[in-house]
Amino acid sequence: MNEKIRIGIAGYGNLGRGVEAVLTQAPDMELIAVFTRRDPAGLRLQDTGVPVHGMETIADFTTAIDVLILCGGSRTDLPEQGPALAALFNTVDSYDTHAKIPDHFAAVDAAARRSGHTAAISVGWDPGLFSLHRLFGESILPDGVSYTFWGKGISQGHSDALRRVPGVQAAVQYTIPAAEAIERVRSGLRPALTTRERHTRSCYVVLTPGADAAAVEQAIVTMPDYFAGYDTSVNFITAGKLQRDHAAMPHGGVVIRSGTTGSGTSQTMEFSLRLDSNPEFTSSVLVAYARAVYRLSRQGDHGAKTVFDIAPGLLSPKSAADLRKALL
Amino acid sequence: MNEKIRIGIAGYGNLGRGVEAVLTQAPDMELIAVFTRRDPAGLRLQDTGVPVHGMETIADFTTAIDVLILCGGSRTDLPEQGPALAALFNTVDSYDTHAKIPDHFAAVDAAARRSGHTAAISVGWDPGLFSLHRLFGESILPDGVSYTFWGKGISQGHSDALRRVPGVQAAVQYTIPAAEAIERVRSGLRPALTTRERHTRSCYVVLTPGADAAAVEQAIVTMPDYFAGYDTSVNFITAGKLQRDHAAMPHGGVVIRSGTTGSGTSQTMEFSLRLDSNPEFTSSVLVAYARAVYRLSRQGDHGAKTVFDIAPGLLSPKSAADLRKALL
Repeated sequence: MNEKIRIGIAGYGNLGRGVEAVLTQAPDMELIAVFTRRDPAGLRLQDTGVPVHGMETIADFTTAIDVLILCGGSRTDLPEQGPALAALFNTVDSYDTHAKIPDHFAAVDAAARRSGHTAAISVGWDPGLFSLHRLFGESILPDGVSYTFWGKGISQGHSDALRRVPGVQAAVQYTIPAAEAIERVRSGLRPALTTRERHTRSCYVVLTPGADAAAVEQAIVTMPDYFAGYDTSVNFITAGKLQRDHAAMPHGGVVIRSGTTGSGTSQTMEFSLRLDSNPEFTSSVLVAYARAVYRLSRQGDHGAKTVFDIAPGLLSPKSAADLRKALL
Repeated sequence: MNEKIRIGIAGYGNLGRGVEAVLTQAPDMELIAVFTRRDPAGLRLQDTGVPVHGMETIADFTTAIDVLILCGGSRTDLPEQGPALAALFNTVDSYDTHAKIPDHFAAVDAAARRSGHTAAISVGWDPGLFSLHRLFGESILPDGVSYTFWGKGISQGHSDALRRVPGVQAAVQYTIPAAEAIERVRSGLRPALTTRERHTRSCYVVLTPGADAAAVEQAIVTMPDYFAGYDTSVNFITAGKLQRDHAAMPHGGVVIRSGTTGSGTSQTMEFSLRLDSNPEFTSSVLVAYARAVYRLSRQGDHGAKTVFDIAPGLLSPKSAADLRKALL
């Protein structure tokens, strides 16, 4: 490797810190700078001593950075930053609002094509690797059913919903795949399963002083959209215990394709993840796809891309010949 | 879909029959003809009434067929047919002699480039989907170890070895992944495991009349390269029972990447297959990649390709926009 791929990080939350950590494992890449909307002077990096700059100066770095990894959130950051930064850089983002992906793709694609950049959107594990396995499943076994189970892992949206319940001081919610449902799918029965039947919900709640535990529990388990209809458990714990036992961010899940070939032959494909850190794994996927984006950009293959559009070999630092020899 | 992709099958053994069966599930593809080195008049097709032609006439069909799926064996058929037929057609093959893949790639690539064709080689599940997962594993989790376990499934090479033992009339051998070894890998311990420690071998043997069972068993379990050093069980059964219980061709296996991110965070990726018919599943993969080959060829992207070189979205009959909307 003669020249390293020069990486920038835009946004320094859990994901930005994850990318910083993961880049130390990539010998063909080099972190150039971190960009933040906070005061750069107040930001201490975790693993490296690269410069931190204000986001408003980022346009000064277009020639210094090969690929910018966008580490903002999907709700407000990425819809704006995605197109704006794809006009200046090759980018990778983890945009994960499934319903709005077509809009995000169109906006980023237009900006990237106009400016001659390559921009991978919705990279991570879901959307991302799980999407790929839904695709492999239905493309290879067209007569079949795909199932996605998530967890065990913390759902940020459901944790936020818990915190809005009167009497709740702090809380986290774990989404847990229903073991029995997974076994039914694995057995090839192709059961019809709603999201509710595929998952249970486990809540760890710290009450505000004087709150009525029974009323809080009732408010949680009957909350429409979030908990009503689910098998939900509510566990009241102390703030200390929440801090000690529930600060990690594990996650995971499984995509199963249960299909039939020929005259009723059962065939099953399964892809699963067990992650001790959701943000660090998502960062690992972002970094591998940043390598692919760099190469596509060098080939003049511009515009927005998803994991569906990117040949897997581009993710590896190895040459195509080495991959054929070592891994095929 | 206006025009269907016109498919030819070269070779009509287990794999050819599997491709024929699987094509009936692909609404965007049409089987045009089967080519055989046997007497075409004597070949009865299983699922369809398409014409059967002698392999020596195949050059007459270059304009009638968009993609030819090569269903011959890796030992003698594909090394010769791969380059010869890539000079005439877009092709897909399942060449699986791992050590000789670079040579096969070079020969097919030269023929395909010279003639302006696209040729996917070594497509199936190993090499193929398992190779992809070894690639995803080490690209996304560079600090880690990859493990491939095969089975439970029949190994043709080991079954052939059994049949060469004096006193054996007929036999099959199942390769079985060692459950305990898989659990150690899943636990994140990253054990050092040889192929022998990852698998056990289970043999079902029909003796020739008068053969000495103890001597046959001894000859099997001590056979160098094939069984010596493995945990091998030998079961003597009748010819009727072999026929009844061991004629199916199940297989499967699992690829596990056990990796670490950041400061010692454990992350595990796992891909597994449980196949009731190995040839029908391999055929399913070949057919999906035939679709990709057709598209690459139309894009003018010629030469030999492997699963590493092919963007996953090309496997699906859906458009890129539909895939983003439905599966991402």
